[in-house]
Amino acid sequence: MSDSITITRIDITPVAFKDPALLNAVGVHEPYALRAVVEVSTDQGLTGLGETYADEGHLRRLRAAADAITGTDVHALGRMRQAVALALGEERGSDGHGLTGMITTSGTLDRVFSPFEVACLDIQARAAGRPVCDLLGGAVRDRVPFSAYLFYKWAGHPGGTPDDWGPALDPEGIVAQARRMVDTYGFTAVKLKGGVMPPRQEVDAVLALREAFPGVPLRLDPNAAWTVETSLTVARELEGVLEYLEDPTPGQEGMARVAREAAMPLATNMCVVGFDELPAAVRRDAVQVVLSDHHYWGGLQRSRLLAGICDTFGMGLSMHSNSHLGISLAAMTHLGAATENLTYACDTHWPWKDPAEDVVAPGALGFRDGSVAVPAGPGLGVELDRDALARLHEQYLACGLRNRDDTGYMRSIDPAYEKLTPRW
Amino acid sequence: MSDSITITRIDITPVAFKDPALLNAVGVHEPYALRAVVEVSTDQGLTGLGETYADEGHLRRLRAAADAITGTDVHALGRMRQAVALALGEERGSDGHGLTGMITTSGTLDRVFSPFEVACLDIQARAAGRPVCDLLGGAVRDRVPFSAYLFYKWAGHPGGTPDDWGPALDPEGIVAQARRMVDTYGFTAVKLKGGVMPPRQEVDAVLALREAFPGVPLRLDPNAAWTVETSLTVARELEGVLEYLEDPTPGQEGMARVAREAAMPLATNMCVVGFDELPAAVRRDAVQVVLSDHHYWGGLQRSRLLAGICDTFGMGLSMHSNSHLGISLAAMTHLGAATENLTYACDTHWPWKDPAEDVVAPGALGFRDGSVAVPAGPGLGVELDRDALARLHEQYLACGLRNRDDTGYMRSIDPAYEKLTPRW
Repeated sequence: MSDSITITRIDITPVAFKDPALLNAVGVHEPYALRAVVEVSTDQGLTGLGETYADEGHLRRLRAAADAITGTDVHALGRMRQAVALALGEERGSDGHGLTGMITTSGTLDRVFSPFEVACLDIQARAAGRPVCDLLGGAVRDRVPFSAYLFYKWAGHPGGTPDDWGPALDPEGIVAQARRMVDTYGFTAVKLKGGVMPPRQEVDAVLALREAFPGVPLRLDPNAAWTVETSLTVARELEGVLEYLEDPTPGQEGMARVAREAAMPLATNMCVVGFDELPAAVRRDAVQVVLSDHHYWGGLQRSRLLAGICDTFGMGLSMHSNSHLGISLAAMTHLGAATENLTYACDTHWPWKDPAEDVVAPGALGFRDGSVAVPAGPGLGVELDRDALARLHEQYLACGLRNRDDTGYMRSIDPAYEKLTPRW
Repeated sequence: MSDSITITRIDITPVAFKDPALLNAVGVHEPYALRAVVEVSTDQGLTGLGETYADEGHLRRLRAAADAITGTDVHALGRMRQAVALALGEERGSDGHGLTGMITTSGTLDRVFSPFEVACLDIQARAAGRPVCDLLGGAVRDRVPFSAYLFYKWAGHPGGTPDDWGPALDPEGIVAQARRMVDTYGFTAVKLKGGVMPPRQEVDAVLALREAFPGVPLRLDPNAAWTVETSLTVARELEGVLEYLEDPTPGQEGMARVAREAAMPLATNMCVVGFDELPAAVRRDAVQVVLSDHHYWGGLQRSRLLAGICDTFGMGLSMHSNSHLGISLAAMTHLGAATENLTYACDTHWPWKDPAEDVVAPGALGFRDGSVAVPAGPGLGVELDRDALARLHEQYLACGLRNRDDTGYMRSIDPAYEKLTPRW
């Protein structure tokens, strides 16, 4: 038998990268998005990469987890998870920005464990000379489809230089943004982040997208900004137009009430964000599509479990995204390639990232026809660019942001802004 | 990246090994148990092993599946499963012996695909120089606990030489059998296969076991031989005595009715034998423990999915067994080692097998304190003994049995025997 591959050191580096002024139901993206890069080193010289959130509490929990698993073999994922659970105890995280649902103890464990699992799979796959997807049952598709992710947005951050996307504050702006995104990346599905404008205008934006992109699957995600009644009004107005309506209203009970009357499936990354929320969701038939996300579903293997549960219980499967860098895109692509019942194109914030900013060496990841090919190299197929990592870490230190706070940032611009769920 | 590891040849060898006259709810075990040994060869010289049922229809489907996946890389399990599904089409298998529930199209696919998946994981793990459990998240326990599996039995097959276990046709015989099995293997849990004698006698046998083995978890499995009313009577009589009652009555509806009043959890390997039966079982709360079995749940990775579903939906997990050889015991042990929520000791028919008969070289597998250590070698950790395989294949050719038929065999001995479900 081969020697064990023992974790000797784990580096966790918070980074910041520029983020446009993207609007959502709880405020606006701050000028920098934060991520943590996890690098796991081993006694065999192999290293593996993971990427996750970088809020302060999460960073603290990551460091406790890293201490708990150093010295473990990279194959011992089950025992590693037990060690991380022990290290975290009953501590619960929070997402800070309010766009995710309740985070339970087990959800916190899943969030904290995820980047280490991804990094260990990266190492396992490199040791075997195979891509990570081969550890997940192998690719069933060579390219993973992603959707255009449209946002209402300002021309730029107040006091900053406008970005080159321009503003998008009405249906015309949204259609123009979609046109550029589709032209550039070839996306064949389009999602609009809603919950920003009054529902009537968001319905009009979707209808304008339908007219501009006939036949292209469309989604709308107001992040629970609506009451059940508003949700049902929108559902009626967009019947036959949306492939799914995502999180129209807060909570599983509300979602179930909307689901009973809405013609389209309801999707969620808010009312089902952990395994302990699945039984009630199934019992209530609250959602018909679950948005997977390996960053909070506990890594790639547990995301495969989620996929299997969706398949077994007759739910569709899509993929959620936060602002992310190339390590996450690689991991999402391996997961998507190996997941047979990925019934919808995945979300990604990738087009909103400055192409000059990443922590991985360029070339491994690219969009064509709205999809990303599984990286060709072993492991995740991406390599850490240490200079770029150092630059983005410096940017993290300099930018002053330590916790994502879309609402606080919005209030700093508009003191009258209130976070209301639901708002309409 | 390493070269691919391509399947160049698959050998499927039916074998027969001696089986005592073990009684169950549908008849009696025939003098030989049948299994098929699957050997997958690759262009890299690595070979992998799987073991499965050997009824004629299953053998035919195995051969169709083998043709469909030859030429595939051993890592491409998802694509392999798709190819096998295509090859099988809508064909459905049957278990022949009537001790399993309905077998659906997807259940047939799971049954047929399983030994190939196990063999490919064996090869993947050998290529990586790691044990198979490391491909399943790694061992969370070094030894996997099994239970003593007691049977009512005749002294021997009619016209044959009595085996050295002696008859067991009353509580005293069952206790004596248990004593020998526990003394020999160190089992710390005990299961009685019931549905053979009138329920009153089986209750007495369990009570005698309780007295003889205080504190040892006990189970009773009458294979759906009882009505709901009889099941509830037994459940009352054995309250506080059984750790679970397995398949007392046929069908999920009946099980749910028993579950609502019985004090102990109900387990099943009959009313939930495939993923498509899980949603209704969860909705009805028909069972509280699912007996996993990689031979019909689609292999080791899908058995992990089942484990994750049980964990998520609050069901316990145990493991079912048919008469089997060493390849299966190795696979069961790797799976059990990697499955954190294996909440009960696994079933095994191992003690009923003549120790001189196996297809794997001796030494890799052994019981101590009722448990089996994860084999130390790479892959499954067992090696094919070609001479032994040839001998057991000759025995298959000579014995004349081609399909398991416990009821037919019983009728050949007792023409008045009727298969009744429920019987009492």
